[in-house]
Amino acid sequence: MKIFNYNTVQAKDAGEGTSKVAVRWLITKELVAENFAMRLFEIEAGGYSPLHTHPWEHEVFILEGEGQVFDGEIATAIKAGDVVFVPSGEQHQFKNNSKETLKFLCLIPCVKK
Amino acid sequence: MKIFNYNTVQAKDAGEGTSKVAVRWLITKELVAENFAMRLFEIEAGGYSPLHTHPWEHEVFILEGEGQVFDGEIATAIKAGDVVFVPSGEQHQFKNNSKETLKFLCLIPCVKK
Repeated sequence: MKIFNYNTVQAKDAGEGTSKVAVRWLITKELVAENFAMRLFEIEAGGYSPLHTHPWEHEVFILEGEGQVFDGEIATAIKAGDVVFVPSGEQHQFKNNSKETLKFLCLIPCVKK
Repeated sequence: MKIFNYNTVQAKDAGEGTSKVAVRWLITKELVAENFAMRLFEIEAGGYSPLHTHPWEHEVFILEGEGQVFDGEIATAIKAGDVVFVPSGEQHQFKNNSKETLKFLCLIPCVKK
């Protein structure tokens, strides 16, 4: 069993296409997680992930703050306590249009289809 | 894409072997989640899940409150922001020895080995 605080895992820039987005890979294949990985994203005020699509799903839980999820046509407000399921193949973008940091968990399958 | 607050999903008694434990199945196979399921557990003060083991892993994120994880030998304190990875086949029990409700996400693979 592994028990640790999320703050002990280094936050890294989330990379190409993102703005003001950091990611912590909390549970990964290296931790013998064979099926799915847990990441924690922090988007600063004004930041966003790219509008993109891929052949695997996201399971998201909003931990802190407020923002929007954009599906290419409609932007939907999200806040702490909200759940977002993005099916494989659907466009999605997370935006922080608030003044506070937006934090959420985003889980993905380890074996991408 | 599905977006909803966790409070909109009914909390059900977590069943045999548990005490003062409610579970909300947030993301399931019925939501076309092929790989893993997201559940939110709420353990009231004094409640606990059974000490048990099974051939699939848990990926846990503590949302609110404090409690303990017991592995059959050692009880480790947990609090909001902590991550718990329980590998397949390891004994585990969640206890709420505090005075406030303990809330956590617990994700499991849909296809149990």
